[in-house]
Amino acid sequence: MSSHPNDTDKKWILESLAEAKLAGIDVPIGAVIVHDGKVIARGHNERETTQDPTAHAEIIAIREAAKTFGTWRLKGCTVYTSLEPCPMCAEALIQARVDRVVFGAYDPASGACGTVFNLFVEGRIYPIPQLTCGVLEDECKQIIVDFFRLKPKAIRQ
Amino acid sequence: MSSHPNDTDKKWILESLAEAKLAGIDVPIGAVIVHDGKVIARGHNERETTQDPTAHAEIIAIREAAKTFGTWRLKGCTVYTSLEPCPMCAEALIQARVDRVVFGAYDPASGACGTVFNLFVEGRIYPIPQLTCGVLEDECKQIIVDFFRLKPKAIRQ
Repeated sequence: MSSHPNDTDKKWILESLAEAKLAGIDVPIGAVIVHDGKVIARGHNERETTQDPTAHAEIIAIREAAKTFGTWRLKGCTVYTSLEPCPMCAEALIQARVDRVVFGAYDPASGACGTVFNLFVEGRIYPIPQLTCGVLEDECKQIIVDFFRLKPKAIRQ
Repeated sequence: MSSHPNDTDKKWILESLAEAKLAGIDVPIGAVIVHDGKVIARGHNERETTQDPTAHAEIIAIREAAKTFGTWRLKGCTVYTSLEPCPMCAEALIQARVDRVVFGAYDPASGACGTVFNLFVEGRIYPIPQLTCGVLEDECKQIIVDFFRLKPKAIRQ
């Protein structure tokens, strides 16, 4: 289910972009999780830094939010991420029962919100989060383009 | 790319089943990662126990293997899991560059190796692991059926 951005979506996507900028040697992708108008968890891509293949921004933020709430059910949460989630992250968000997923740039390589795959389909055993796509798309795309332009050796292998 | 089981696949699927039986209050799903003929990481579903929505058997095993090797690239590894991986786990295995994925029971709810979704498609930016499906399918299915029969309250919500 896709929906239009609301008034605060740009604000929180900018916050996810700020988080992305902390990624250092990793591809700059950031995520924040908002509950009751406050950021309750955040994460940026740390795959290279930690050498953990699951250390994407969303996974880090989800695990932090679950720790904060003491439950794996993240109802009432909206996840803002600077890049369209890959299937690993998209499924983690769906299974964690978040209310909404809002992302910035589309990912032609692995996007799982409709670009390459679409996991957000009705009729699954899980309720499907509301989806808002392409908020501040250009800004979110640009930092990734810049990253690969400046650090060609970091290209995915 | 789907392939037939080899001589040792049943042995390692039995090992993943033994791991599944350690899941306690969680749905019994287990995984082991084999490298050079030895188990180098293992995991069982711990979502309820830890209240971490990402704590599926395969994710736990992948993170342990990466820690052991000191790299997120798990080349040369085969992952044996008692249930067809969901999209979160399947994508984690693909992005971690494992050589092979072997699973037991098919998952009609969330299987991402062809049953509900198929992430193992050629033409992506990642090399696609070899896939072997349905090894000791009946045994792997039975422990999950028994779990839900004996613990109806544990049904996914």
